[in-house]
Amino acid sequence: MGKNDNIAKWGQNFVKPLYFRKGTLFLLDQTILPHKVKYIRYTTARQTAKAIKTMIVRGAPAIGCTAAYGVVLAARQYQHRKNYKELIYREIDALAATRPTAVNLFWALRRQRLIVEQGRTASGVAKALTLEANRILAEDIDMGRRMGEYGAKLIKTGASVLTHCNAGGLATGLVGTALAPVYAAVARGKKVKVYADETRPRLQGARLTAWELMQNGVPVTLITDNMAAYIMQLGKIDIVFVGADRIAANGDTANKIGTYSVALAARHHGIPFYVVAPTSTVDLQIRTGRQLPIEERSADEVTLVGKTRIAPRGVNVFNPAFDVTPARLVTGIITDRGVCRRPYRRSLAKVKKEEF
Amino acid sequence: MGKNDNIAKWGQNFVKPLYFRKGTLFLLDQTILPHKVKYIRYTTARQTAKAIKTMIVRGAPAIGCTAAYGVVLAARQYQHRKNYKELIYREIDALAATRPTAVNLFWALRRQRLIVEQGRTASGVAKALTLEANRILAEDIDMGRRMGEYGAKLIKTGASVLTHCNAGGLATGLVGTALAPVYAAVARGKKVKVYADETRPRLQGARLTAWELMQNGVPVTLITDNMAAYIMQLGKIDIVFVGADRIAANGDTANKIGTYSVALAARHHGIPFYVVAPTSTVDLQIRTGRQLPIEERSADEVTLVGKTRIAPRGVNVFNPAFDVTPARLVTGIITDRGVCRRPYRRSLAKVKKEEF
Repeated sequence: MGKNDNIAKWGQNFVKPLYFRKGTLFLLDQTILPHKVKYIRYTTARQTAKAIKTMIVRGAPAIGCTAAYGVVLAARQYQHRKNYKELIYREIDALAATRPTAVNLFWALRRQRLIVEQGRTASGVAKALTLEANRILAEDIDMGRRMGEYGAKLIKTGASVLTHCNAGGLATGLVGTALAPVYAAVARGKKVKVYADETRPRLQGARLTAWELMQNGVPVTLITDNMAAYIMQLGKIDIVFVGADRIAANGDTANKIGTYSVALAARHHGIPFYVVAPTSTVDLQIRTGRQLPIEERSADEVTLVGKTRIAPRGVNVFNPAFDVTPARLVTGIITDRGVCRRPYRRSLAKVKKEEF
Repeated sequence: MGKNDNIAKWGQNFVKPLYFRKGTLFLLDQTILPHKVKYIRYTTARQTAKAIKTMIVRGAPAIGCTAAYGVVLAARQYQHRKNYKELIYREIDALAATRPTAVNLFWALRRQRLIVEQGRTASGVAKALTLEANRILAEDIDMGRRMGEYGAKLIKTGASVLTHCNAGGLATGLVGTALAPVYAAVARGKKVKVYADETRPRLQGARLTAWELMQNGVPVTLITDNMAAYIMQLGKIDIVFVGADRIAANGDTANKIGTYSVALAARHHGIPFYVVAPTSTVDLQIRTGRQLPIEERSADEVTLVGKTRIAPRGVNVFNPAFDVTPARLVTGIITDRGVCRRPYRRSLAKVKKEEF
């Protein structure tokens, strides 16, 4: 599938996780979904960095798009300052320091940094950064649709899909990664239902995936994470799709904590387990999963649900935000440039080469 | 180990999940732990049945003990009624209808029913039922200590134990099943630390196991269920102990939802996975796991945490309270009469034979 192919434009009515209008970035506040649908306005890079850190916006591709617009805001803030480039670089560093695992963040910031480096005037830089951010967002949506088309071919009508966390539209520019094959299959008239892991501790599955699928008219059943293996044993799952925050050169995949557990269960039951991610998520600099940086987050995420304390005060907590699924458990990696199969070192290098 | 051996009396200072005093049953309200430590008083069988159903008391052995005292309350309620036996039988039926999976419930009620059948006078029946309930409770504590001694031999000093749900003192008469080996090892001076799965949806691990271990001076780290496989991958777990709600003749084990997922992960990482349960939990009438009845509970357990709603209103939910771990994933079943090994059909039949 070449870059200029016509692809089906499904998803235009989906809820937008972010948009940029008249110098202002609007982020859908994902910390209060599904109870309230509210966009927050951002006019500075520093606020935008904070929004990424506090997970107002989350999901590797959506973080990348948001960071790109964060740099736009920086350029607009500093366009009357002599040392505007230096000031923008500082904001780029602050944006890069928000979350360590999602590689799209660094990838989007690299693209923007290059624009700044090549710029001649402050206003020219601001304009070019805006165009580049718009391009990153448009490409993300386009890539989502392409992943959807590749993935949809793997879904039979009547199929039951399991997914973990939210790698849906809300995690991206618009149409999702792991959920894109589901949406594309539904757009082609296939009947598909989804089981959504609630995804502790931050409950992205319960709060976001379930809500998003209900909004978009796809039947969804919510389960707790520890039920996934059991429903596989009951024969209720045909295929698993998950997203990725970073994929090493050998196919080892960092994704939301709990993904590894799902992959083990899928393997045991002979259920295909697919990672769905744009090629920007593949980091050839990282040779294997051992080198993938895993963010640890605060104990409160585990011990508090909303304002409800669910564990004794002062209890020790281990809270890694991601885990690493070894490539051998991954049936295929669905990218915007086709489905990569083992050996991943070769197939991933190939799609990365096409990226430029 | 014979029935009359002296066994170490550790655990005497542990918090009591239930006790009977002067015609009143006191149950520690496990739905409000760890925030409040409060005993509720029960004087009727019907109230007691409701307490089991709403999980004021939970854990298969504790349910058995509670039900036995429930029958005592029935006998005291009806001891001036002519048709007292019939009335007691009706209460036994109501107690039996509370929860379908834990076999200890039916086992304890059968013992009490036999007492009623053999009774001559209403007051005699009430007295005999009280003695029998006391005996069931004392036996439970004694069995816990025995399981602890057998299990402790499998724990090396410095070991890291993973457990799921709460099969600790709170789930039994006093000293636990899955946690009994930990307590016995600690009583012998071994250093042991525990990783506790929080155990969605009812969070018994976060609310009860973490609290109980902290109370009893055992180092504990709380994790979400979906982290268990990952911490095994990190090499942090040496051995797994879980309880059981019912064990089939072939060793297939019904236990809290999520147990199967832990068993799969343990198998993948070559970590020993032990089920710890008194022989009363073994049900030779059930040939394999396929026949084990699995209770489904309400969607609210998944969509509400305390009063915090964590999922969209009206979302479909699948909420099985238990799952079935096939015998082939179970390294051993630690009973009060020794550790059963494969083939379980033979080893379990042997310990059941000794039961009478």
